[in-house]
This record gives sequence, C-alpha cells and structure tokens, in this order.
Amino acid sequence: MADPLITLTTDFGYDSPYVAAVKGVLLSLNPAARLLDLSHAIPPQDLRYAAFFLSGAVPYFPEGTLHVIVVDPGVGGERVMLYVEVAGQRLLVPDNGVWTRLAQDPAPDRVIQLRDPSYWRSPLSRTFHGRDVLAPVAAHLSLGLDPAALGPPAADWVRLPIPVPRREPNRLTGEVVFVDHFGNLVSNIPGEAVPPSARVSIAGQEARLVHAYSDAPPETLVAVVSSWGTLEVAVAQGSAAERLRAAAGTLVVVSGAW
Amino acid sequence: MADPLITLTTDFGYDSPYVAAVKGVLLSLNPAARLLDLSHAIPPQDLRYAAFFLSGAVPYFPEGTLHVIVVDPGVGGERVMLYVEVAGQRLLVPDNGVWTRLAQDPAPDRVIQLRDPSYWRSPLSRTFHGRDVLAPVAAHLSLGLDPAALGPPAADWVRLPIPVPRREPNRLTGEVVFVDHFGNLVSNIPGEAVPPSARVSIAGQEARLVHAYSDAPPETLVAVVSSWGTLEVAVAQGSAAERLRAAAGTLVVVSGAW
Amino acid sequence: MADPLITLTTDFGYDSPYVAAVKGVLLSLNPAARLLDLSHAIPPQDLRYAAFFLSGAVPYFPEGTLHVIVVDPGVGGERVMLYVEVAGQRLLVPDNGVWTRLAQDPAPDRVIQLRDPSYWRSPLSRTFHGRDVLAPVAAHLSLGLDPAALGPPAADWVRLPIPVPRREPNRLTGEVVFVDHFGNLVSNIPGEAVPPSARVSIAGQEARLVHAYSDAPPETLVAVVSSWGTLEVAVAQGSAAERLRAAAGTLVVVSGAW
Repeated sequence: MADPLITLTTDFGYDSPYVAAVKGVLLSLNPAARLLDLSHAIPPQDLRYAAFFLSGAVPYFPEGTLHVIVVDPGVGGERVMLYVEVAGQRLLVPDNGVWTRLAQDPAPDRVIQLRDPSYWRSPLSRTFHGRDVLAPVAAHLSLGLDPAALGPPAADWVRLPIPVPRREPNRLTGEVVFVDHFGNLVSNIPGEAVPPSARVSIAGQEARLVHAYSDAPPETLVAVVSSWGTLEVAVAQGSAAERLRAAAGTLVVVSGAW
Repeated sequence: MADPLITLTTDFGYDSPYVAAVKGVLLSLNPAARLLDLSHAIPPQDLRYAAFFLSGAVPYFPEGTLHVIVVDPGVGGERVMLYVEVAGQRLLVPDNGVWTRLAQDPAPDRVIQLRDPSYWRSPLSRTFHGRDVLAPVAAHLSLGLDPAALGPPAADWVRLPIPVPRREPNRLTGEVVFVDHFGNLVSNIPGEAVPPSARVSIAGQEARLVHAYSDAPPETLVAVVSSWGTLEVAVAQGSAAERLRAAAGTLVVVSGAW
Repeated sequence: MADPLITLTTDFGYDSPYVAAVKGVLLSLNPAARLLDLSHAIPPQDLRYAAFFLSGAVPYFPEGTLHVIVVDPGVGGERVMLYVEVAGQRLLVPDNGVWTRLAQDPAPDRVIQLRDPSYWRSPLSRTFHGRDVLAPVAAHLSLGLDPAALGPPAADWVRLPIPVPRREPNRLTGEVVFVDHFGNLVSNIPGEAVPPSARVSIAGQEARLVHAYSDAPPETLVAVVSSWGTLEVAVAQGSAAERLRAAAGTLVVVSGAW
C-alpha cells in the first residue's frame, strides 16, 4: 500500500521558511508521510481565492486524502481549527469558512473541533498554528489516530458567502469568481444555463461564445464553458483580466431568448 | 523497486488550481505514482522557452522516466497529443513542437498519437487536456499499460524551429536562446567553437571571455561556457539581461582569428 | 523504513531548468531518494536571507535528514563545498557561511571538505556545482557512502556575521533580520528580553506590543513574539514592510524600565 498522502495549501509563499517548517514537523512525526504541494501562492489571507482554489483542486484526489490548508488571518485569536470529512476528502483547516465551497452539496460527514492540545506542539506560538497545530495533528492522523480524539464534534462553523447568479427574464447576471494564472476570468454562471445563441457581455464588451479558445483568432475576447463547468471569459493567447481590467467581482451578463 | 516516477512541467503557474487537479487525477488512478515538479512557471504558452527548459532538464533523469508537459496554446483545437520515446525518456506532450529540441540527435524511437479516448477522462473538457487526457494517460502508463494501446504511430509531428548560429570567416553570429532566473543570457553558440582569443560582443558591448563568473570582479560583463555547453553572457553577481536589456533573440557575435 | 529524505534549497527560481537538472542527477544515481523542495525562491545570491531561511526550516526535520543548499555566488572560484553535521542534521553547502546560523549553539559535530572528484559529475562545469558536485554527492550519501570518503575534515570555514542587539540601560537596539512573505519584519531581539510594559519603535513609529496579530484591529502596527521566538513587527492583515518601507537592517528599538 502507498504511504499516506498529505497535501499542503497555504498563503505562505515560496520564499519564506514557513512551508519548510510545516513539512519538517510533519515528517519528524511521520517519516513515511508523502507530502504533496498544491499551492503556497494563495494571495495572503485571501479566503475567497483560497476557497475557489480548493473547490478546483480537492475533489480530484483519491478518497481519504488528507489536506492541510493554512490560510489563517485569524491566527492567535478565538477561531478554532477543524477536522472535516466531506465528499470523501479529509481536511484540516481554520474555522474561517475557507473550506465551505466544498460542502455545498453534499453536506460534510463530520466536523470536529481541534481542542485537545496533547496532539499539538508545545509551547504553542500565537502566530503559527500551521506549524504548531495542523502539522502535528495531520501527522498523527496519518499514523492512524482516530479523529474523535482531537476534540468534540462542531455544532456549527463559519460559512463563506458564495455569490449566486441573478436570474431575470432572458437575462442571467453572474460575476467573476476567480482569475486564473493566464488571466482567464472564471464566472459563477453554470455552462448548461447558457444557450448557444446567448450574448455574453462583461465590462462593456461582448465576448464571442465559442467551444474552445482555439475556435477564435488569437486576441479575440471569447466566452467558453470552463473546465470547472462554468462560463469563462478569455482572450485566446492573451489575458482577459488585463484587457478588461477585470477582477473577482466583475459582473458577467448573459442575455438572449431562452 | 522504487514507485514509478512522473515529472510535471506546465505553464499553469503556482497560484492556480490546475496543477493540483492534474496531481489529483494522476494519484486517483495510481496512488503509488511519485510526482515530481520540474516547473510550473513556464511563461504562459511560450513554446520556445519551454523547449529550452526541457532540453536542460529532461536528459538528466533516469531512463524510462515519464514526463508530462502541458504548455498547450492549441488546447481544444485540432492538435493531437503525443506519447514520445526519445533518448531513453518518455514524454506526454501536445503536438506543438515543444519537445523537438530533445529529438535533434538522436531521432525519437517512438511517437504515438493519443487517439483512444477510453484512457481519458469523460466528459472531455475543451480547455483542460492536461487534466483530462495527459494525467489519466500518464497514470495508465505508470501502471504498465502498453503505449501501443493509446493510438496509432505518428507519421509526422510539429517541429519547433531551432535557431542555428551563422558562420562567416572569423565570425560566428548566434543569439540568446534562454534568459535564466539570474539574468544570464544563454546563447546557441557551442562553447568549443569559441577560441580563448575570441572577442564576444552583444548589444553593442564587449563581454570578457573568462572560465568562471568569479574570474572577473563583480559587475563585470563576462562570457563563459555555460553548464549547457554553450556560450553564456553574464554579469558576475548581477543581471546581464537587465544591464543589456537583452532577451531571447538578441544577437551574440564571436569574432577573432581562428 | 522510509526511503532517504533529501531536501533542496536554492536561489535557482521556479522558472529555470536548474532545479530540475539537480533532481534528475540525484534520482539517476539513487532512484529511491525522496526529494523535498524547501524553497527555490531564495533571492539570488542573498546569503543573509538564505541563512535566516535555513535557521527557520532545517531544525524541524527528522534527525539525519540530508539538506542540499545551493546559494553559491562564488561558484567556479576557490571556495570549496562542505559536508556538515550539526544539531542532528546533515548539510551539503558551499563554504560561504550560509549554514553557520545553524551552528551558533551547538557547534557542528563534523565538517568535511568535498575534495574527492570521484563522487562528482565529470566533466565538471565551472558554473553549476549544484548539479555537478552537490547532487551526485547527496545521492552517494543517501546510498550509504561514508562521509569520510568525500575529503578531509575542514579545519576552518567561512562564518557569516550575525547581527546581535546592543544593550544599554533601559534600551535594547536590534534590527530586522528577515522580511517574510506577508511583509512581517522579524527582528533579532529575543522575545524574553521584552517586558510587557516595553515600548517598541521602528522607522519613527511605535508598534503596539500584543500577544497575537488578532489582538489589535486590522491595519494596526503591532509587535509580537514571532514563531521563531524573536520580536516581530507586523501589520494585522497588512504588510509592515510596505507600510514602513523597512527591510533587513532597519533598526528596532525596545525601551522602558526593566
């Protein structure tokens, strides 16, 4: 059997020693753990960005994979840490809503508050719970610890608001929820809600509805159904974010008879 | 025996969930695969950059290593995906020439078109074949699938033009083919073609021919035989690219009696 | 038993093929080695930065972990490479002082000069000893080679100066030694030297002494005991480096009666 897999997603950046410290703590407790970097380039403390990132990454992993997520603007305050089982994945996360896009459907199977400090590093710092709480807890879980030992079930948790498109007759108004590395603008409008005859407009411009980036000449503003299943506005071989000066929150309007 | 090794090279960036999705798909099909990041910072859709990167990275790996390469401006269009065996390495790549620097000498041993969708994810997106085609195919190969099952042999494939230095009496004119992270300018002029008495000029300035960066005082413009065997223009403890405002394509002239 | 663990820390960047070449050489000699990226985003040739990075990362690893460190402004010159055993960790480093923060207390157990070229790649380049010396030596060590075979014990080595706070009556003057990814300013003033009633000033401004970032409203300039145990100046949910235009070397003054 393959060694237990633990993925890491943080806003620590690639230049600081924080990621390395987390890896060291994990491997000191479980030298056989297999660590896998998802990203350490989440923009600092950007929960919405991280939430979208996780919804585009976590579901692809083998059942039972353990994901450590450290985007934690509330470190050192009152927020607790959580162990979550949802859709076959296991998460260790701050209770700040960053994971709740993953729990829209289905609901989580299990949410536990990390309360028992005997699985943490001691002394506990006030600024680095990724190293001091999540890393050692992940190692213990990967060694077979029963999650029930970590603390009591959570009765409730923080939920991140998820923007939903507004429907009017012949018109659907959504918004950009993620700008990817290429400057593609991923919206929250479901692809199946967009008929082939629809008109897509954003930031005062019209985007040509096509099946693939390559169906339009380079530099054309296009709208495609993204690999996440939602409408995406892109510039073939260019950056739509730059062209339109668009960002998360920019409105996307689909209109036409349907 | 060590678990099968699969390397990943993409232009997805470190901030987007695309790399993570590829890793998840791979590990879901083969949980024992060992994934190794080569780079996810190839400049978006820059085939020349990626081609040089691969020629400086792939040849160092153990024979039989499987390399997944996703730099794919033509995604969703007519271009096919290829499985290639060349110089003891195995590649999964879009048919856009990005790998062909590796096949200058020797020729590839085997090139197969990926045509059988039974090894792909379904439904297939039109924008993300790294996740939907290359990742599952890589997983199947790492589990022992015979590459012949993937599709028919390719009769031909796209070749990326590779700039060759121009020889005149007492003069060799090459160009910068890669600017590295330090701002060193790697040229296409073979080191053995440069006699110790030669003069090297670039962007109107003369670079001092030395054996190592440290043979000249800091801030000197120098020319050395790079670790790839070709002439490289550098500033010791500085950036030649910044100093000269040079980039890929900038001419490098070697002159002198030989 | 888990396969041997080798960590990699370089200033090669994520966009150049140098990291990949190092990984390939390592795995070609020892296919079972487990490679772990600590960082490849050390600012080019910044030994002070790298030294702090290592002191915040290396101590967390399991005893006997082998760390390959390539920040090497003197490559190709007279500097030798070293094998070091210190505080239970094993290092392969250029002899430029980058590792000596780790050896303040305790002293290193063993320092060996890499002199025997039979464990290196041949021919040896003059510009890339990470690939040609450190990678193959690391592979041989991970296969069980006795470090004594690598060369003679080092009688001495380069030490990087480490700034020490200046103590005066009722006043302690330290400096910023590291700026992290969030713009937090890590100083060299030990946390236990700062009484709760102290005043902390930096760049003409006063920082509020708190226990955790979240003890102050967002945007407040605060001073906390960092996760490294020293005083850190931060802006809750913001960047202190940007706010104060501070950098490594900026003075931090703690004053008050004690």
